[in-house]
Amino acid sequence: MKIKTGSEYMSSLQATNPVIYYKGEKIEDVTVHPATAPHVRAAAMTYALASQDEYHDLATATSHLTGREISRFTHVHQNVEDLIKKVKLLRVLGQKTGTCFQRCVGFDGINATYATVYEIDKKHGTNYLERFKKWLIRIQDENLMVVGAMTDPKGDRSKSPADQPDPDQYVHVVERRDDGIVIRGAKVHMTGAVNSHEILVMPTAAMNEASKDYAVICSLPIDAPGVTMIFGRQANDSRRDLQENLDVGKPSFGVVGGEAVLVFEDVFVPRENVYMDGETDFSGLIVHRFAAHHRANYGACKTGLMDVLTGAVTYLAQIQGTAKGSHVRDKVTEMIHLSETLYSSSIACSAEGVPTPSGAYMVDTMLANVCKQNVTRFHFEVARLAVDLAGGFIATLPSEHDLRNEDVGHLVKKYFSGVEGIPVEDRMKIGRLIEAMTGGTAMVESMHGAGSPQAQRIMIFREGKLNEKIKLAKALAGIPSRKEKEVYPQLISREK
Amino acid sequence: MKIKTGSEYMSSLQATNPVIYYKGEKIEDVTVHPATAPHVRAAAMTYALASQDEYHDLATATSHLTGREISRFTHVHQNVEDLIKKVKLLRVLGQKTGTCFQRCVGFDGINATYATVYEIDKKHGTNYLERFKKWLIRIQDENLMVVGAMTDPKGDRSKSPADQPDPDQYVHVVERRDDGIVIRGAKVHMTGAVNSHEILVMPTAAMNEASKDYAVICSLPIDAPGVTMIFGRQANDSRRDLQENLDVGKPSFGVVGGEAVLVFEDVFVPRENVYMDGETDFSGLIVHRFAAHHRANYGACKTGLMDVLTGAVTYLAQIQGTAKGSHVRDKVTEMIHLSETLYSSSIACSAEGVPTPSGAYMVDTMLANVCKQNVTRFHFEVARLAVDLAGGFIATLPSEHDLRNEDVGHLVKKYFSGVEGIPVEDRMKIGRLIEAMTGGTAMVESMHGAGSPQAQRIMIFREGKLNEKIKLAKALAGIPSRKEKEVYPQLISREK
Amino acid sequence: MKIKTGSEYMSSLQATNPVIYYKGEKIEDVTVHPATAPHVRAAAMTYALASQDEYHDLATATSHLTGREISRFTHVHQNVEDLIKKVKLLRVLGQKTGTCFQRCVGFDGINATYATVYEIDKKHGTNYLERFKKWLIRIQDENLMVVGAMTDPKGDRSKSPADQPDPDQYVHVVERRDDGIVIRGAKVHMTGAVNSHEILVMPTAAMNEASKDYAVICSLPIDAPGVTMIFGRQANDSRRDLQENLDVGKPSFGVVGGEAVLVFEDVFVPRENVYMDGETDFSGLIVHRFAAHHRANYGACKTGLMDVLTGAVTYLAQIQGTAKGSHVRDKVTEMIHLSETLYSSSIACSAEGVPTPSGAYMVDTMLANVCKQNVTRFHFEVARLAVDLAGGFIATLPSEHDLRNEDVGHLVKKYFSGVEGIPVEDRMKIGRLIEAMTGGTAMVESMHGAGSPQAQRIMIFREGKLNEKIKLAKALAGIPSRKEKEVYPQLISREK
Amino acid sequence: MKIKTGSEYMSSLQATNPVIYYKGEKIEDVTVHPATAPHVRAAAMTYALASQDEYHDLATATSHLTGREISRFTHVHQNVEDLIKKVKLLRVLGQKTGTCFQRCVGFDGINATYATVYEIDKKHGTNYLERFKKWLIRIQDENLMVVGAMTDPKGDRSKSPADQPDPDQYVHVVERRDDGIVIRGAKVHMTGAVNSHEILVMPTAAMNEASKDYAVICSLPIDAPGVTMIFGRQANDSRRDLQENLDVGKPSFGVVGGEAVLVFEDVFVPRENVYMDGETDFSGLIVHRFAAHHRANYGACKTGLMDVLTGAVTYLAQIQGTAKGSHVRDKVTEMIHLSETLYSSSIACSAEGVPTPSGAYMVDTMLANVCKQNVTRFHFEVARLAVDLAGGFIATLPSEHDLRNEDVGHLVKKYFSGVEGIPVEDRMKIGRLIEAMTGGTAMVESMHGAGSPQAQRIMIFREGKLNEKIKLAKALAGIPSRKEKEVYPQLISREK
Repeated sequence: MKIKTGSEYMSSLQATNPVIYYKGEKIEDVTVHPATAPHVRAAAMTYALASQDEYHDLATATSHLTGREISRFTHVHQNVEDLIKKVKLLRVLGQKTGTCFQRCVGFDGINATYATVYEIDKKHGTNYLERFKKWLIRIQDENLMVVGAMTDPKGDRSKSPADQPDPDQYVHVVERRDDGIVIRGAKVHMTGAVNSHEILVMPTAAMNEASKDYAVICSLPIDAPGVTMIFGRQANDSRRDLQENLDVGKPSFGVVGGEAVLVFEDVFVPRENVYMDGETDFSGLIVHRFAAHHRANYGACKTGLMDVLTGAVTYLAQIQGTAKGSHVRDKVTEMIHLSETLYSSSIACSAEGVPTPSGAYMVDTMLANVCKQNVTRFHFEVARLAVDLAGGFIATLPSEHDLRNEDVGHLVKKYFSGVEGIPVEDRMKIGRLIEAMTGGTAMVESMHGAGSPQAQRIMIFREGKLNEKIKLAKALAGIPSRKEKEVYPQLISREK
Repeated sequence: MKIKTGSEYMSSLQATNPVIYYKGEKIEDVTVHPATAPHVRAAAMTYALASQDEYHDLATATSHLTGREISRFTHVHQNVEDLIKKVKLLRVLGQKTGTCFQRCVGFDGINATYATVYEIDKKHGTNYLERFKKWLIRIQDENLMVVGAMTDPKGDRSKSPADQPDPDQYVHVVERRDDGIVIRGAKVHMTGAVNSHEILVMPTAAMNEASKDYAVICSLPIDAPGVTMIFGRQANDSRRDLQENLDVGKPSFGVVGGEAVLVFEDVFVPRENVYMDGETDFSGLIVHRFAAHHRANYGACKTGLMDVLTGAVTYLAQIQGTAKGSHVRDKVTEMIHLSETLYSSSIACSAEGVPTPSGAYMVDTMLANVCKQNVTRFHFEVARLAVDLAGGFIATLPSEHDLRNEDVGHLVKKYFSGVEGIPVEDRMKIGRLIEAMTGGTAMVESMHGAGSPQAQRIMIFREGKLNEKIKLAKALAGIPSRKEKEVYPQLISREK
Repeated sequence: MKIKTGSEYMSSLQATNPVIYYKGEKIEDVTVHPATAPHVRAAAMTYALASQDEYHDLATATSHLTGREISRFTHVHQNVEDLIKKVKLLRVLGQKTGTCFQRCVGFDGINATYATVYEIDKKHGTNYLERFKKWLIRIQDENLMVVGAMTDPKGDRSKSPADQPDPDQYVHVVERRDDGIVIRGAKVHMTGAVNSHEILVMPTAAMNEASKDYAVICSLPIDAPGVTMIFGRQANDSRRDLQENLDVGKPSFGVVGGEAVLVFEDVFVPRENVYMDGETDFSGLIVHRFAAHHRANYGACKTGLMDVLTGAVTYLAQIQGTAKGSHVRDKVTEMIHLSETLYSSSIACSAEGVPTPSGAYMVDTMLANVCKQNVTRFHFEVARLAVDLAGGFIATLPSEHDLRNEDVGHLVKKYFSGVEGIPVEDRMKIGRLIEAMTGGTAMVESMHGAGSPQAQRIMIFREGKLNEKIKLAKALAGIPSRKEKEVYPQLISREK
Repeated sequence: MKIKTGSEYMSSLQATNPVIYYKGEKIEDVTVHPATAPHVRAAAMTYALASQDEYHDLATATSHLTGREISRFTHVHQNVEDLIKKVKLLRVLGQKTGTCFQRCVGFDGINATYATVYEIDKKHGTNYLERFKKWLIRIQDENLMVVGAMTDPKGDRSKSPADQPDPDQYVHVVERRDDGIVIRGAKVHMTGAVNSHEILVMPTAAMNEASKDYAVICSLPIDAPGVTMIFGRQANDSRRDLQENLDVGKPSFGVVGGEAVLVFEDVFVPRENVYMDGETDFSGLIVHRFAAHHRANYGACKTGLMDVLTGAVTYLAQIQGTAKGSHVRDKVTEMIHLSETLYSSSIACSAEGVPTPSGAYMVDTMLANVCKQNVTRFHFEVARLAVDLAGGFIATLPSEHDLRNEDVGHLVKKYFSGVEGIPVEDRMKIGRLIEAMTGGTAMVESMHGAGSPQAQRIMIFREGKLNEKIKLAKALAGIPSRKEKEVYPQLISREK
């Protein structure tokens, strides 16, 4: 691994020249700009853990391509153990950053692409996998951060890509040249894009023949000509931008992964970095696989976040003098219960992982979707309980400026203290931490990251093996089997 | 009514001189400072509605003291109809401001005080009610805004007022003079304080004899010497302070009612404005009554907010092309269902209202507590559904500065548009509105305003008439009645 | 009122000759047959209450047709007070019987028919109302029990009445004669039918022109030639049939209202008892009104049942020694909270009641639907909590026969006792009461009576005034009004 | 394995002579008595699967004691794979019986005892493990069914065993002889007891020194002198007893596992079958382990039941013509989602299994408790959804006797049919199946089997590592570490 530490990672970013806009201005150095630096630090933690003895085994792997030690975030899962170690790694990272550390997106993109282009080659006689392996070995050896770029803006959602009034609402090939392709469009919600080295473009949905130009997988550097990023606003971003650290709640890290819209204005991609071009019959499959991996992850990293939140409210209860209340204990219990329920599905879909034809391991699709579906419920409920236990002061607390003010600072100190002997800053900091982890952007990301709730429900229904379940019920009820048409004939899950 | 319109209200505020700090600086004029002006405008709506024909009947009442037309917000409820009209008025105001309009706190304080001091006089031979009526007639005639000041900081919550290491953690009388009293302490979460004319101080809990100095009700002007306010931070307050209007979501109004900590540093209150001084046997009762009125209100104003949120996601679905999805309709249905369930309890506790000995009407305590308890659940669930339906873009949307930027503005326009023909600003504005109404401070206030969830549960259990219910069960099960001790002998509800 | 007491009611039933089958045999006298007697006793309670001073005001009314005192169950609501008194009456009856007392169905049928035929007459120049009043005065004066017969079997639910392979899956007119009509078909889930005096037939859904023969309202005696009833099985019906009283749990009353399928095999109805015949444009309206009244009721009677259940588990906790556990108190609190939330909507939809053109009062449709929707959730949750608090013994308790057995009776006594001094029978009886009130049939009835959950959701969506809500959201977000098509143009609620 | 098939199992039962009472009479042969035969058949399925190729690998294991092939139900888990295979086996058995197959109780008892007595021997120098192994080898070789007997009646639950007015409320040693011990007391909720060969008695809770006589583990034959069983009533047991098969819903199997109270009236147990006698320091540990294993199982077998229920409602929707409704698909999706969430925790606690000092593997305690806690919620919700989708007819359906009656049979056929061409029996059978699987006893067992909800919450809180979580939160909030007392110092989980 070329990049070995968090600081080497930061230096490597300074060596790139991406075009990034934020609040109407360009960001020159993401490692120091207050809007992006917290996100850089969270991603840096993925590098840092690899060099700590305690986490080395979780944070690294042995490349099946080269036999060399690599970051787990660049690894193609080779067995169930790999899948489970990933889950544990993500929970630790969630605990240590309290936020999104962003690097799963490229990780899952790599795994989904690897398994899928293997099958494209088998069917269509292409040689995508060789190209992809070559690129991947470089990613592994240099230990680069990759942004997985899947979600298109979609424009009018009642229309397919080819039917959009504006054809650019989905990324597509606008020119094919001997040496490569030219792409146009945008990818939205690009977590970690501004501090990545490389982009891995993938299609966002199953496509039909008419959408051939939209079925494209390729990779390119983050600072390729024609690539522009616009970094999104987040809850209370001005506190972060103005470095009002006490009020930020989490002084080192952001509220979620920094997210950008990533625009491709006729960007050239060399042929050797193109891994799908028009094979619409596989565009659904790569989405299916990427989504399953990514949904599995949410039960791990979000559990890490909920661990932090549970600790935060417990500490706050202690310093407010309420820790002994039976309803406090009961709500803390509920927070743990919901967190561990989530974690269960991440572990379970990994333990039930299966090899794809390429040898790369996939999580169990059903359980991975179940996992993310629960995130969209339980993370909100855990946040609600945290808000309940924290008390109203997290919504009415004066700013750090008032605490430091010579006229009223003593009043803030006097009237926001809790149990004797605990500095008022402790209560303010922990209150702000809870505020940051329960409000706005943090929750929205939890809802929609890795796919909105309805996307999981469609998969859960489809993978539900309903016709088999009907047979079980009829057998028990003593109803004779007859030749009857299946209720949901369309329900044939791809991989089972 | 002296103050008849919103602008007269604003002028009247400019005639006061309160001491207000915010982010380490003094606010000189709350009607123009960007941090407070949105809250002033929301409170102004309570004045404005009275002069609109459509709402005149809801927004005004006839004083039972003077026979003159007054704002309903200064009225003592005389019957069930009054209680129901209040509910309808609050829902309309919630719909029109999308936020807290703050004036209920004083309103409920007036009603709770009126009914309680009547009973203090009866028992203790005091003449508090006469004093209070005199003050109240002035409030009614001048149409002043009153902040109801109940919640003390409480310090170490495992200790009673008199046992706190710092005796000032609850407001108390530090000196009694012939002409009045001197009070010290603070009240927190003071909604609307910075734009009120008068303060009505009330105790925050049932008190024992040892806490005699803490059993105090009195009124004083907002700019009385020794009164200092520190205005709290709110979610995304910098967007508001910097007048980034598109990004604020609700350009005219705040995310919740502006809230301050209100500090009394040895403030003198003339005898004629003292309405309780040491009658600890009534401090529980006034809290009980204030809480019931205030909890009833939350089912009305929050329903108004949820109406807005339901409209917002429906409109967004329309302009994103998803309005026809069956899951969209189902989630919208659920939002309506939860909103109307809340509203039911507000209406019901009013329809079941009863007169107190003073003639002032009280809502049904059980149903009012049930109402607020549901707010702490359903408002979060409605917000969760709104976030689900809105989609992830509300967490990753670039700022208005980028929309206006000449390099990337066209990209924001292109890639954040939805259905053809709808300006991108519509989608951004409605997205920001949903962001503002579902995140952080808005939800915390909904949880804790009018009392945290556990406070309601204690009341619900206490008012549950369990011993009567046991009799019903035994009768149906055919179990003979025996002389046995009651399960929860302490369960004797005060007013039933 | 001719029938004044419970026993007069029973005698009056013995004077009728309905054809009733149960478990393959005919029931000759419903007042003594163990399968039907408990239901008769529950209905008798509606008669008995009228003569008790405490309940006289709730249980009776003054006929707007005759000015005579009548049972409230035969009354046409004349104002909001009537609607609210009905709610209180139903809660009391639920508390006293712990089951369905069945008489609401006819009550709501009367109210829906009265208001609707008034409008049919206005539009079509018919004279249905006169006929109906004549019948109703007899019902009032004789104080008869009427079964409201609405729900048809429906056959293949994907098909409309006229498209069914079997045309009899909805009740329809098969012959029109000078002196009357002949009807065929069946009504299912007929609560209280076997112990009613009269049947009021109504259509089950909105109809189109092709279904003219299905748009019929008429009344007939329960023992009219050609009417056959088959009484349904219920949970643990054999315990009731064998009079194993301790094991029944509720020795005097049934687990729900006794329900039958009511078959019309070419039954003649005289012209003077026909109140709709082919006016398909009103078949939707009567269903809408009947459903709203009936859904409103469920929030009242089921609250009565939940009161019993709450008392039962509290008593059980006392005699098992667990009443002091904080989790026990918390779950009891939750049971009360959910019960009172339900009750709120019943009260609220009544307090918001409005007159129809006929003068008969209607509940608020939205809130009535919200009410029933919550029944389908909260009653289950209350039952779940009751099962939790009761403990596992309600599923493994030996029968009364074992308690009475000389070999093992002492063992049952010894090992199923709780707190010292409480007879084992108390624990067994209260356990069996909880078993009866939480299992099987009781819960199914709660789910589907007055309409299945989806039926309410359709109404809630339709009555949700979404286009008005969109306007609120746009105003707050600062989006200018434009001439745009409404999102859900079909959403025009009938009565608002 | 001596007993190889279901019928050999039945014959082996006929060779025993247990004393069983039911409804006041003795049961002579459990394999033919209608009250017990369905439970025997379900247990027989655990034997039958072992000889089917498809399930052989799941249903058998290799004894670590003898190297011989044994039923998995007599195996001591040797690794994570064993734990996972058990989960899969239980789900299959749930799917094939739709009920409790009872054999886990002894299975978990064996595993908990094995691991615990190993540690008793280490600490106290006893030789319990040798005795236990000898007994276990016989169980394995003969393939016997063992009832794990843990739950005592408990009497007054506010008192400990030694403080009960009646000392027999917990099983205890009343006499110690050279050749063995004499025990007295009872065990309640004994699933599968009446059709087991052997009893394994274990203590029910952590004990203190004063309760030395209550800390006893031992085994004895089901027909040992002084052992009496009284078999409990279940929902609709008379339908089963009268063999009204269509109405039973599940003609071959019971609604839950048959449960009895198992009474020991001074029963002698030879010394060689005593595995704990007074080592109170280990009575908590065996309960902890038994509970964890047993709670893990519920996520597997109940998922199997929910699979059946999901199939049942889907089939019913098909034959009623409602399968295409979007709300039907959505509710079916939810049923699957909840089932698979449960299953996740069963898999996860197995995948995270760890060896005990004895080498026997334990599931992860936290996740096992989380699993069972979710059963107590999700199984009810799945049942509620099934009742919703089934429709009201499952509560009002006439009996099979009416279907067979010559007068009204044709009416039942006509009016309870659904989609053309499907026999009415199909709809009735599947309706009755749903009735049997959602009502009464089935749900109570799901709530309380393997421990009531509060028991799991206590464990979840205790295992929640709150002090570590506080450290995470403080680190992220930037609060310096101080020497402060831990919030919940008692929270030291035993095995971590």
